[in-house]
This record gives sequence, structure tokens and C-alpha cells, in this order.
Amino acid sequence: MKILFLGFGNVARRLAAIVTDEGWPSRRGTFPVEVVGLFTASRGSLAGAVDLARARAELEATGRFDARHPLRTDMTPLEASRNLDYDVLVELSPLAIEARGEPAVSHIASALARGRHVVTANKGPVAFAYRKLAALAETQGVRFLFESSVMDGAPLFNMARVALRGCRVEAFAGILNGTTNAILCHMERGGSLEEGIAAAQAAGIAEADPSHDVDGWDGAAKTAALANVLMEADVTPFDVERRGIGSVSVGEVRRALAAGRRLKLVCRACRREGAIQTSVAVEEVAADDPFSLVDAYGAILRIETDLMHPLVLTQEGPEVMDTAYGVLNDLMEIAGTAERKGEEP
Amino acid sequence: MKILFLGFGNVARRLAAIVTDEGWPSRRGTFPVEVVGLFTASRGSLAGAVDLARARAELEATGRFDARHPLRTDMTPLEASRNLDYDVLVELSPLAIEARGEPAVSHIASALARGRHVVTANKGPVAFAYRKLAALAETQGVRFLFESSVMDGAPLFNMARVALRGCRVEAFAGILNGTTNAILCHMERGGSLEEGIAAAQAAGIAEADPSHDVDGWDGAAKTAALANVLMEADVTPFDVERRGIGSVSVGEVRRALAAGRRLKLVCRACRREGAIQTSVAVEEVAADDPFSLVDAYGAILRIETDLMHPLVLTQEGPEVMDTAYGVLNDLMEIAGTAERKGEEP
Repeated sequence: MKILFLGFGNVARRLAAIVTDEGWPSRRGTFPVEVVGLFTASRGSLAGAVDLARARAELEATGRFDARHPLRTDMTPLEASRNLDYDVLVELSPLAIEARGEPAVSHIASALARGRHVVTANKGPVAFAYRKLAALAETQGVRFLFESSVMDGAPLFNMARVALRGCRVEAFAGILNGTTNAILCHMERGGSLEEGIAAAQAAGIAEADPSHDVDGWDGAAKTAALANVLMEADVTPFDVERRGIGSVSVGEVRRALAAGRRLKLVCRACRREGAIQTSVAVEEVAADDPFSLVDAYGAILRIETDLMHPLVLTQEGPEVMDTAYGVLNDLMEIAGTAERKGEEP
Repeated sequence: MKILFLGFGNVARRLAAIVTDEGWPSRRGTFPVEVVGLFTASRGSLAGAVDLARARAELEATGRFDARHPLRTDMTPLEASRNLDYDVLVELSPLAIEARGEPAVSHIASALARGRHVVTANKGPVAFAYRKLAALAETQGVRFLFESSVMDGAPLFNMARVALRGCRVEAFAGILNGTTNAILCHMERGGSLEEGIAAAQAAGIAEADPSHDVDGWDGAAKTAALANVLMEADVTPFDVERRGIGSVSVGEVRRALAAGRRLKLVCRACRREGAIQTSVAVEEVAADDPFSLVDAYGAILRIETDLMHPLVLTQEGPEVMDTAYGVLNDLMEIAGTAERKGEEP
């Protein structure tokens, strides 16, 4: 499988570690990996037959690809998606709210339009352009997969695709933003909002500008992505009713805790009068609600359907390895599909 | 899709209600249903072009198929599985521990050997003969699916099949037997073991002979089924270390509760020194463990893999509709696979 990487941060490097490990060929669902390009926003880019293990080591040692690297290129990611010879575009850039998911949406669209599969861990394209991109993939007979965009690698979308068939998703609720959850947990232990943010930054989780998390934008993007995929909504993060944790005081957090309850930032969607209502807001959660057990960076999603009692999926303490695994699982899905078609993956 | 039903109890009748409902054709993943036989252990059997809605109504009204029913047959289920013209055998008989899963195992094997798909909600065949039946299905190029055999219709096996690819399952733990969980909850409220059993029987959940649940056999069968499928074990329920709830006293239950803990019957498997160890036993569960929130007939499963942090799947209050949905989802998987192959489903 010929892969073009757009983005080569922590997730991509962890993925590289798995597929270049000597145990890789013995795993189930394994496939041969050939990297034909590796593009970063500010650390230089490579085009050609990339040695993945070496590229990873180089980036981790020196922080960038040397200008004298023989594969070093000045091609843009859009040019690469249009011109390089690959089977799968692996898009791993961060969420861009103000730019409405761009430039990732254009990179993905250009790959799909060429009949190439796309895997992304970026929720932006699913939150802003799911309908368009899914239709393009369908027309071209290729896959557009994004398991890691919500709840890291927890098999949410893969599960929904094969395991909620025939069901109508009526509603969902989730704790989906680890940074704000960790900040609220920090405040329960007596810290301030600012200290909670600083702790999340020190742990390498929150962005330098934490407003995307704190103001609920990340949650809104995940809510929109889930509503678009699970409920056939056609919403963007701007349509999600959104209240972040910025105005939550330590007093409120501690008062709830004293009453045996916890404050959580909860993402919700439900059908009401023919429309799909979406929201992100701080809620008080009772002690006998599984949401109250979600600590730090953990995540939970409760799905209500018309043919089953509610299902709850929880991921305990996800980290970068989980996100990388979600991308890997999507690649395995593509490799398996191609295999079923009798093509060489 | 031509279906042969072996067993037509609550689950089959609920399934019949879904696929004969007027909303059925508009669901996603729908497929045409044609029933060619409908066999029950003691209520008579039909062979031929069965009118599913009428058969369901007749059985619910009179408790059996009338001897003068034009499709009434004396054929045995084994003869039916060998001779009728069907695409999918839907096997819905109850678990038979002493008989090591028979006669369901033989019925399923005979269908697979003829190149017919099989869906079962019976954990016996998966607990006693998974390896043999899966190999037979593989050889014949057909599907052997059993979503409802553990955790009712919660998409456990479907999820594992597509969403844990490449992972090695290192361990699992679950509360998987609703009857014993409901009995323990009853004892927490001050009832005796016997009263708990009577309440479960009155609710139509426990068998007339509750020993399969109380002695942990149902849990052992589910543990064996999960270990065989998720961990490539080759065990039967007789290999599972098993302690039921029969010796648990109200005092123990209440003492645990007073200390903020709950007694739960927990099914476990883990890899140890190259082997897979399996067990069913009562454990004290802490209040901050999601297992402590599982009430009455709810179920939970925690899966540990080598490439992800633990995943937890919970089903809230499953009933017969969930089991029926699991069977339906398996049928949709088969209809979808056939479609992908370009065959008529």
C-alpha cells in the first residue's frame, strides 16, 4: 500500500513505529507499507521512496528534515495530493475551525477525486464537509475513513458502520474532549481553571492556545462530526449550541462534588421535531451515571437507537497510541477491502 | 434471503415483528425475507413458504401450530437443515451444557457443510465448537455469525471483527449474566437468594431450573465463547474455573454495600505463561469501577489489547428486542456480503 502522509506529528510517528516494528508482519490484518511522500507544515517535506524508520528517527533527533536530505521537496501538500502516485492519503493535520476545516478538506477532496482512499484523524473535514466528501468517495468507489477523529482510536465509527445497521440513531451524548475533562478534574482537586490549563499544557495535551478546548470548539466539532455520520445531519461546528468551561468557577465544581456530583462538558445530539439539535455544555452528572467515572483524558459515548437499548462505549485514558491505532485500523480496513476485490492492496 | 428458523421463541418472534413491519423496507441495510421453514421443539413445525406474520400471530394466539396447518411437517430439524432450500439457517435454540452444545452444533455444521450461512443466538455452539464451525464456514466460503450469543445484541463480535484488527486481545472481564446480576441486586435490597431467583423467574428471565445461571454455567459458556473468538483460545465451558452465586449470603452482599462496594459475578480471561486462563467468580467491585454501575439485567465488557488503552462496552437494560436486533444485524451482514459479491442476497 503506497501511502502519502500529510502531517508527521506524534500520531504519524507512533504509527510509523508500529508498522516498522519487527513484529508488524506477524500481526493479523497486516499489509506492506510503502511511503511515497511525507509532508509537514514547518519541518520540511519529502517526496519519493521514503525510509519510514529513518525519517522518523531524523525528525525525532533534529526536529526537521535537513535541507540536504536527498528526497527533500518544495512541493506543496496540495500539489502532492494531486500529483504523487499513492493508494491512500493519510491526512493528519490539526483541526482548523476558523478556516472551516481547510486546507485539509481540499487535500482530501483532491485525493478522492483522483480515486484514492483517504484516512484522516482530523475531525475538521468530517465536521465541515462530511456529506460532500462521503459522496465523492462513493462516486469514485474509494474509502473515506476517520476512526481517530473522535474518541481517538476507540472503534466508534467502525462499530457504527457494521454494528448499528438498520438502526436509527435517535440521540447520543458523550464526554469527548479530554483537555476540558482533565481541567475540570484538576479544579475538583482545588486548582484554578488557569492552573488546570497549565497542567494540560505541561502534559502536552492542550494547545498553546487552549481556547479551542476551553471554549468548546473541539467538542462542537466532534458533535458535528458524529451527528453528520451517525444521524445523517448536515451541520457544522458553527451550528452546535456551545458553552465552554471558561465561566465555570472552582466554587461550582467543588459544590457539585460535595453533593456527590461532578461537572462534565457533555456533547449531545438528538432528533426533535424532524431536526437534529446539537449542543456542548457543562452538566452536573450524578454519581450513578457512568459519565461520572470518566477521569482525566478518558472518553465516553452513549448512543440511543430505535432497535436497541442504549449502548455505552468508554475508552480509559487514551493517548497518542490510541489515535495511531485508529488510523492503522482504517488502513487495515482499506487493505482488507482491496483484498476482497482481488486487487493488490 | 431464504431463511430456515430452528427455534421460534421470543427472540425469533420479535425478529419476525421487525421484518414484517411496514417500516422494514425503508430501513438501511434492509433485505427481502422469505421463510422456508420454521421448526420448534414442542409447538409443531412448518416447512414451505411460511407467512411469517401469520405464523407469529398463530403461535402467540394458540401457543402452537395446529396439526391441520397446511405447512405442518414431521421433518426433524436435522432433516430440515440437510434438505430444505435456504440461504441462511437461523438457529435459536437454548444453551445445552450437558449435551456440549448439541444438537445445535450438528444442525449448524450440517448447514455450513452444505455451503449455507448460519446465524445463531445460542452461545453453546460458539462455546463448544467455535474452531470447528469457523473452519467449516471458511472452507465453504460462508458466514457463521453469533452476535446475540453474548451481551444480547450489543455489537461485541461485530465490533471486534472490524475494529480490533491487528490488535492482540490480552484480557477481558465482564458482567455477562443478567439473571445473577439481578439476583445480587435483589439481595442488596434485603431479599434472599431464593427470593431473587423467584423474582427473576417472575420477570421471565431465569429458567424454571435456574441452576445454569446461579451456578455460573451461562457465564462460563459466554467466557468460553469470548475467549475462543477474541483470543483464539480452544476452551469449552468445562475448562472455565467456575464459582457461582449459590453460596453468597445476604450478609456478605449487605456488608460489601455498606462499605461502598458491590458483589458482582465477573467473567474473566487473560493470557498467562502462553496459556489462556478463564474464570467466573463473585468479586467485590469498588464504587469508582464502571462494573459497579451495572444494575439488574445490564451487561458490561472491558477489553484489554496491546495497541489500545482498555475499551469498555456497556449495554443498559437489554431485553429480547436487543437479542433479536443482534440476529437481524448478522443477517444484514450476510445480505451485505452477498451484495458485495454481486450475488442476489
